[in-house]
Amino acid sequence: MAMKNLIVGQSGGPTAVINSSLYGVVSESFAHSDQIGHVYGMVNGIEGFLNDTILDFAKELPGEKLEYLKTTPGAYLGSCRYKLPEDLKDPVYPRLFQKFQEMNIGYFFYIGGNDSMDTVSKLSRYAQQIDSDILVLGEPKTIDNDLILTDHTPGFGSAARYVATTVREIVVDASVYEKKAVTIVEIMGRDAGWLTASSALARRYEGDNPFLIYLPEVDFDVEKFLKDVENSFQKSASVIVCVSEGIHDASGKLICEYDSDVGCDTFGHKMLSGCGKYLENLLRNRLNVKARSVELNVCQRCSSMTISETDQEEAVMAGRFGVKSILDGNTGKMISFVRESDSPYRLTCGLEDVNRICNQTKTVSLSWISQNGSDVEKEFLTYAKPLVQGTVKVPMDKDGLPAFVYRK
Amino acid sequence: MAMKNLIVGQSGGPTAVINSSLYGVVSESFAHSDQIGHVYGMVNGIEGFLNDTILDFAKELPGEKLEYLKTTPGAYLGSCRYKLPEDLKDPVYPRLFQKFQEMNIGYFFYIGGNDSMDTVSKLSRYAQQIDSDILVLGEPKTIDNDLILTDHTPGFGSAARYVATTVREIVVDASVYEKKAVTIVEIMGRDAGWLTASSALARRYEGDNPFLIYLPEVDFDVEKFLKDVENSFQKSASVIVCVSEGIHDASGKLICEYDSDVGCDTFGHKMLSGCGKYLENLLRNRLNVKARSVELNVCQRCSSMTISETDQEEAVMAGRFGVKSILDGNTGKMISFVRESDSPYRLTCGLEDVNRICNQTKTVSLSWISQNGSDVEKEFLTYAKPLVQGTVKVPMDKDGLPAFVYRK
Repeated sequence: MAMKNLIVGQSGGPTAVINSSLYGVVSESFAHSDQIGHVYGMVNGIEGFLNDTILDFAKELPGEKLEYLKTTPGAYLGSCRYKLPEDLKDPVYPRLFQKFQEMNIGYFFYIGGNDSMDTVSKLSRYAQQIDSDILVLGEPKTIDNDLILTDHTPGFGSAARYVATTVREIVVDASVYEKKAVTIVEIMGRDAGWLTASSALARRYEGDNPFLIYLPEVDFDVEKFLKDVENSFQKSASVIVCVSEGIHDASGKLICEYDSDVGCDTFGHKMLSGCGKYLENLLRNRLNVKARSVELNVCQRCSSMTISETDQEEAVMAGRFGVKSILDGNTGKMISFVRESDSPYRLTCGLEDVNRICNQTKTVSLSWISQNGSDVEKEFLTYAKPLVQGTVKVPMDKDGLPAFVYRK
Repeated sequence: MAMKNLIVGQSGGPTAVINSSLYGVVSESFAHSDQIGHVYGMVNGIEGFLNDTILDFAKELPGEKLEYLKTTPGAYLGSCRYKLPEDLKDPVYPRLFQKFQEMNIGYFFYIGGNDSMDTVSKLSRYAQQIDSDILVLGEPKTIDNDLILTDHTPGFGSAARYVATTVREIVVDASVYEKKAVTIVEIMGRDAGWLTASSALARRYEGDNPFLIYLPEVDFDVEKFLKDVENSFQKSASVIVCVSEGIHDASGKLICEYDSDVGCDTFGHKMLSGCGKYLENLLRNRLNVKARSVELNVCQRCSSMTISETDQEEAVMAGRFGVKSILDGNTGKMISFVRESDSPYRLTCGLEDVNRICNQTKTVSLSWISQNGSDVEKEFLTYAKPLVQGTVKVPMDKDGLPAFVYRK
């Protein structure tokens, strides 16, 4: 019988290094051509697989072309948000495994966040149930860094590097005038404040901007915020405030929903805008100061120029480790990161039971958030700093712009 | 009598290379130490100068420190938005020239956009009027590229490189799902569409996203826009639309003001948000598609990682050329760029009468905008492509993030 084939898919929102994880899986699989036959990719995740959209990496990205994955943001294979049914008796499962058998799949990889680990969990449990020998592993990715049982997730370091770099640039840009002004920077992370906390890395010296940092882990109080800003003007006329998109008051109500009670668009629908915009208006009206808000938006997860070399290398490492682990017979696991030491920073890969991981959220420890709720402690900086290190050289195309690889 | 001293200031909104122009002026002045005494900087422009906030570059940025200016966004010297009075009989003029005399200033440089050239115009005219031998030159800068009598302005190339790179990343990020979705990218440039037009450089191949590009030079029609988007879905489920912040309808009304008639915040004030947010809501309500908007915001003018090497080199060149020109006795002029050829791209510096430049706006030629009003012609690409070339290596600090130089 022919050697078993490997298939890999990507799922959920992309990151700047989700394709580096893919590169790790594919290149390591090629290195084991004595044990692995074809290396397939499912286009648009498990949903695409069900629709028979599949590619063969040896044909699609031969030779050096594969290298470009490491500096291409977005999900090369495309993504989906398809959730497998809870009931393992659902007919989709035999349909999937029938396809696996037809394609002689022995190894299944899914690169993604929480929901993707749920898919890994279900497929591995179903495989066990029907006594299939298909092995299923999950490769973590998420800029939100909210997966448990891993020191951090691939994708977070690059997003944190983007946030730290960009906030530092915004601080420099905003400091050119002498008049009192506030800039609100709205950062991704609805339930977990890891990325917003990373804005503290932007400080060039102790006491530098951003003066105020608010995470969703702590209830947000509008009146306290206004006082915090007023106090900050004692330090400088230019005040930079970093807020998570998910900040909410003590009742749990999101700050970004404060204005939607009032503002409606011409269709009578609620206006959808972020908390940054709300706070900007609030400052203008209550403190009578110049205010501006900047929503970092999707650039946080797709900037190629701020890919962290450490993050990129670790994403590749996780991919390679996964292939070695699956060839060792592991299934139903997620590749995890174990920090051996902070200084010098040393990291190894581990394996964790995927059933313990999916559908859970790791938030920033309250002990890493300042007592006043508007800054982070040194422990967070010690944790985050190694993850944003290293500049990646992005290859340019004939037009002088980043050369990204893409499906035709 | 001692050699005359030189003073330089920055004014208006900063760019990614306004400090490169400063570097050019200061380093070239140092190279002429046989003709120029002290090289001073006015902190916060002419307004700061009036308040005696001045620094001496030899002391502030000795040796290698000066080099960091070339990769530091924002205005190192700080900026102001102070407009000198129209009436040259105003007492501020003798006050200024009294200060110049006390400091033995012989050469005055102002780096800025339209309003700054107005300052150069007034100072040089006043100098002539009182028969002062102080020479006054203007160094152009603006991401908007809207100064006349110059091929382009320093600052535009880097901002255009940021726009092209970021739009390309957003295209990649948005293309991972199969469901119909529109992403609106809102780009700076209220009256001139140069930066928005640069989003066309993002295309990786002919027919690639962004499918639609709207400049303020053409009236925007909401119904035509909706039809344009619907037609674009024939090409791809993911449609990227780039719009200038200043798009307006045939009556001249800004699209970003459409919703402010209706939406008010909790204080009863008009909600301030961009045209991107309005169009996003419009698409969701009228076409029933997923829609998102990304406002590129100040990152366009302060991103260090996307500084165009060409733009940086030209900004330095303009600074150096200015010093040579002022030593040749020129005054009341702005340094301009003259394009000698497109291919190979060759540029030289020239001098233009500043009185002809100030208070005018250069917009994108209608012949460079497509007939349908939703794209740009090849001529624009030929013009813009050379300006965004080259990646700059940004030095990193001990924390692994861009090392910017700043005043203490």
